[in-house]
Amino acid sequence: MQDPSRQRCRPGLPSPNAREAASMYGTVVAVFLVILVAALQGSAPPESPFPYRILLDPQGTLELSWNVSYTQEAVHFRLLVRELKAGILFGMSDRGEMENADLVVLWTNGDSAYFADAWSDQEGQVHLDSQQDYQLLQAQGTPEGLALLFKRPFGTCDPKDYFIEDGTVHLVYGILEQPFPSVEAINTSGLQTGLQRVQLLKPEVPVPEVPADTRTMEIRAPDVLIPGQETTYWCYISELPQGFSRHHIIMYEPIITKGNEALVHHIEIFQCTGGLENVPHFSGACDSRMKPERLNYCRHVLAAWALGAKAFYYPEEAGLPFGGPGSARFLRLEVHYHNPLKIQGRRDSSGIRLYYTATLRRFDAGILELGLVYTPVMAIPPREPAFVLRGYCTDKCTQLALPSSGIQIFASQLHTHLTGRKVVTVLVRDGQELEVVNRDNHYSPHFQEIRMLKKAVSVFQGDVLITSCTYNTEDRKLATVGGFGILEEMCVNYVHYYPQTQLELCKSAVDAGFLQKYFHLVDRFNSEEVCTCPQASVPQQFAAVPWNSFNRDVLAALYGFAPISMHCNMSSAVRFRGEWDLQPLPEVLSTLEEPTPRCPASQVQRPAGPTVVSIGRSSG
Amino acid sequence: MQDPSRQRCRPGLPSPNAREAASMYGTVVAVFLVILVAALQGSAPPESPFPYRILLDPQGTLELSWNVSYTQEAVHFRLLVRELKAGILFGMSDRGEMENADLVVLWTNGDSAYFADAWSDQEGQVHLDSQQDYQLLQAQGTPEGLALLFKRPFGTCDPKDYFIEDGTVHLVYGILEQPFPSVEAINTSGLQTGLQRVQLLKPEVPVPEVPADTRTMEIRAPDVLIPGQETTYWCYISELPQGFSRHHIIMYEPIITKGNEALVHHIEIFQCTGGLENVPHFSGACDSRMKPERLNYCRHVLAAWALGAKAFYYPEEAGLPFGGPGSARFLRLEVHYHNPLKIQGRRDSSGIRLYYTATLRRFDAGILELGLVYTPVMAIPPREPAFVLRGYCTDKCTQLALPSSGIQIFASQLHTHLTGRKVVTVLVRDGQELEVVNRDNHYSPHFQEIRMLKKAVSVFQGDVLITSCTYNTEDRKLATVGGFGILEEMCVNYVHYYPQTQLELCKSAVDAGFLQKYFHLVDRFNSEEVCTCPQASVPQQFAAVPWNSFNRDVLAALYGFAPISMHCNMSSAVRFRGEWDLQPLPEVLSTLEEPTPRCPASQVQRPAGPTVVSIGRSSG
Repeated sequence: MQDPSRQRCRPGLPSPNAREAASMYGTVVAVFLVILVAALQGSAPPESPFPYRILLDPQGTLELSWNVSYTQEAVHFRLLVRELKAGILFGMSDRGEMENADLVVLWTNGDSAYFADAWSDQEGQVHLDSQQDYQLLQAQGTPEGLALLFKRPFGTCDPKDYFIEDGTVHLVYGILEQPFPSVEAINTSGLQTGLQRVQLLKPEVPVPEVPADTRTMEIRAPDVLIPGQETTYWCYISELPQGFSRHHIIMYEPIITKGNEALVHHIEIFQCTGGLENVPHFSGACDSRMKPERLNYCRHVLAAWALGAKAFYYPEEAGLPFGGPGSARFLRLEVHYHNPLKIQGRRDSSGIRLYYTATLRRFDAGILELGLVYTPVMAIPPREPAFVLRGYCTDKCTQLALPSSGIQIFASQLHTHLTGRKVVTVLVRDGQELEVVNRDNHYSPHFQEIRMLKKAVSVFQGDVLITSCTYNTEDRKLATVGGFGILEEMCVNYVHYYPQTQLELCKSAVDAGFLQKYFHLVDRFNSEEVCTCPQASVPQQFAAVPWNSFNRDVLAALYGFAPISMHCNMSSAVRFRGEWDLQPLPEVLSTLEEPTPRCPASQVQRPAGPTVVSIGRSSG
Repeated sequence: MQDPSRQRCRPGLPSPNAREAASMYGTVVAVFLVILVAALQGSAPPESPFPYRILLDPQGTLELSWNVSYTQEAVHFRLLVRELKAGILFGMSDRGEMENADLVVLWTNGDSAYFADAWSDQEGQVHLDSQQDYQLLQAQGTPEGLALLFKRPFGTCDPKDYFIEDGTVHLVYGILEQPFPSVEAINTSGLQTGLQRVQLLKPEVPVPEVPADTRTMEIRAPDVLIPGQETTYWCYISELPQGFSRHHIIMYEPIITKGNEALVHHIEIFQCTGGLENVPHFSGACDSRMKPERLNYCRHVLAAWALGAKAFYYPEEAGLPFGGPGSARFLRLEVHYHNPLKIQGRRDSSGIRLYYTATLRRFDAGILELGLVYTPVMAIPPREPAFVLRGYCTDKCTQLALPSSGIQIFASQLHTHLTGRKVVTVLVRDGQELEVVNRDNHYSPHFQEIRMLKKAVSVFQGDVLITSCTYNTEDRKLATVGGFGILEEMCVNYVHYYPQTQLELCKSAVDAGFLQKYFHLVDRFNSEEVCTCPQASVPQQFAAVPWNSFNRDVLAALYGFAPISMHCNMSSAVRFRGEWDLQPLPEVLSTLEEPTPRCPASQVQRPAGPTVVSIGRSSG
């Protein structure tokens, strides 16, 4: 640990190495003044500070806090740089790459320090942005380091800028170790860089009151020694007390062991199947060969937290049933440690604190699984940058399984395996797309959190829910089929709703007979002698397809046309009564438009170029 | 005709009817002041006046002039309203509809007059634009009427605004006959409205000098009585003098009979096939049953003019060969009269004036036909809003037919039949789209002009030219096949280039054998008993396809995959030597991005809402 008093006297001074580099340019890197740049003082940061906070780098030297103004359609950022060298890059990009990124740059040319809106091209070369949309509000030396306050509208209408929208945002950063004569002299490829995924646009949901009889239960890792490897999923089985009666979980929050904030990536609690008499009290890596077989029965999500998320509150009229006869007594805690620096010897007791009450709320909350059945008939051709698969929850199923008063979806967790890039679920009524249930245009399989919806979505009998997943298989040589395996794919949206119904999953897959017609067609159309013969298994048949644009396009055409087989189930094995095979694809006559950036309504006075930064020292 | 002196004294005064309506609101419609609104005086219109001019309505009461500033990326408009009633709408929309249009509105509420940027929704309801991008520079009473000067950037980044780009722009207008309390009270459906197609973004091509020995020849309609019907194509055969020697046409310009400016829509001159000894001296409607069969041999475009176009100049190093041994002695003039008011008894002698010289320029210019072969194997399914067909000019053909120094394309005329909506030709080299030869995102079959390119495009041996046409067949019940008929389709780009080569057409169509595989596949895949049997003709086979998304998507997949048959021809009948069947589709590895609006770079001071208009009277 550094001595904080040392830092107080010289906030943001470069480290010896960088200082040497800077002095090559004959000057100190940053100039500290008590007074801010006059032009910037007018627009002080908002009263309310920054409720959301995340460490950007594994060392924890870059700390980002932010708040969101939905009326201004802008995000206010506070970036704390603990050990400032010659400057930093910070920004956003589609999937966390440093190329084609929308950046702010704080840099020095040796004489002065500057702040500017910039962007990197596909070679990582940084350019000044013709339109300056990141607005610097304050630059201040603090005891902890240099604090930069700036704001950015969600959309800027500058085509070089990132559009801040709902869902995952990939934040990127880069450390400048030496002065640069100009922004154009910087290339991101030579820098120490990194990325952090976060949901920037947190919903503004009012926090319901916690009743007086609320009790808490902590499900935590048992003082685990974090392995010195990049990725560990730790599994730990815990158990409810004997005779634990029926309660409602009404909220939960993360417990992160101090000092491990940059290592604990996400935490989930799963319920094991209700009927299980006993589950071994395992604690170890989830992929360990020692892991008991029984843990595979612990897959029903109870709670989930991911980096950057805060406490999760159920709506005040609903709670998640927990305990009581027939319910799951065993819980599986899973903690994902992300340790790219391979730090050794760190111990951890992170977990989740559940808040529950015996005073049951009006409604039980439930979780409904939407999307695609886990079956190889739904496959993605190889070498595709953005192939889309769709899973349907049909009108026939909602008609049968939902109450006449409908259900309210208030939260959603999206799920795919490694090639998933986008996920969206849309509500369709009478052939018209009405509302987006949840959309993530920058979805990452490495960042799956339960997200509160900004506005609950009502689903009624006869409604249709369509979940579309976009996959990137550019690095694969064979088709990727649907299934449970990590190299197979899923397309799932777990929606949290109330009142709970018997419907646990409403998913689809293409009719297997029509898929055989496709294989037959491929065999006949392609002049090459291939055999995607019916006696082979579907994965073998897909593996035999000679992929070209025709076979790909026809597969996509099949998925967009052929009848489907529906799973409209009470549990993974029990279907609702009815005919669920060879169902027609739901018709969509009118579609919603993709969200597009709205240009900032007010004509903000934007600087034409870089702003000279003079850093005020905190008076406190 | 109105008495102009009357107009001079009361410019823009409402007609009696409208005045009555206005007086219902207890006031006169427009207020005339000598002084302009002070805030607007700063930005006076540019020195150079408005080189381009067009009448918007058939009565000729709305006259639009404009100029283009490529450095400012803005268009300056001057709209002259000859008989102002209570106001006007003027603007642009995708295809000339009054719904979803980007509009300026000049209106009065009875007390004051206002000018504002507005837009109409899909019901034609007008709304004030949150961002005011049409900037009023001057409103002035003149002897001829009210003159409004205003400017608009090409792109505004306001999603409600039309993006002014190369190619056709559909201008729309509407006449307000009575005051409206606000913009929101206006619906376009109740108004007298109209549209006019024009190329707004004229290229800034330097005008080459006309040599001293230049002579002119006028090819004009022989004092034709314009029929009192909406649409007439008039055909007239004229003849070059006996023994007329080889010349170069170096420019041509329209001759429009005075008073008929709003009736003459476009004019073309075609050369008849070189070998023809004699062609009857016909003058009459082109669809007349009296029309001699021989006129079908007069299809080779020599010159073309359309509404809003000015003189056409050949580049100074090239001219179009004309006269001399072996060339066409007979010319077919075709004049399209557009007479929606069905005016009777108007006589017309419009035509084209050719400027030619005996001092031949360095290069002969030529015309090369790109796109699709006229064959039914290229078809568009019915009920499609935007189906794309592509025609290829392959590397093999350019390798063989172009000189090693390449050719320069300097002008282009796009051509489809009735369902064509967009046309673009792209130059591809080494698998990379390099340059757009010509793009029209608002193409109309009713507005086909020869357009000078902003920048000549060099095409070398081994280059590929891909012409893509987008069709709308929403109002058709059967497939639209390729062919000569007006209800069949074409996809053609006539490119004008030099030096002339033997290559007259470089076009493609899907291989007929692969299309038969498609019909076979359709027969087998669709459960219905249909027969797209091989003994039927291709149009019959297409007519038998039971259209659904699968059959449509597979046809598109076929066109995107199957080998092509090339026409790499010296004339419509003579191919270059080589194997032209079963050619592979050219590979395109990287594509150009569609043009997108650039937000105005400078932060213009825009008004927040409507501008009060006070109309200055001209001092002259």
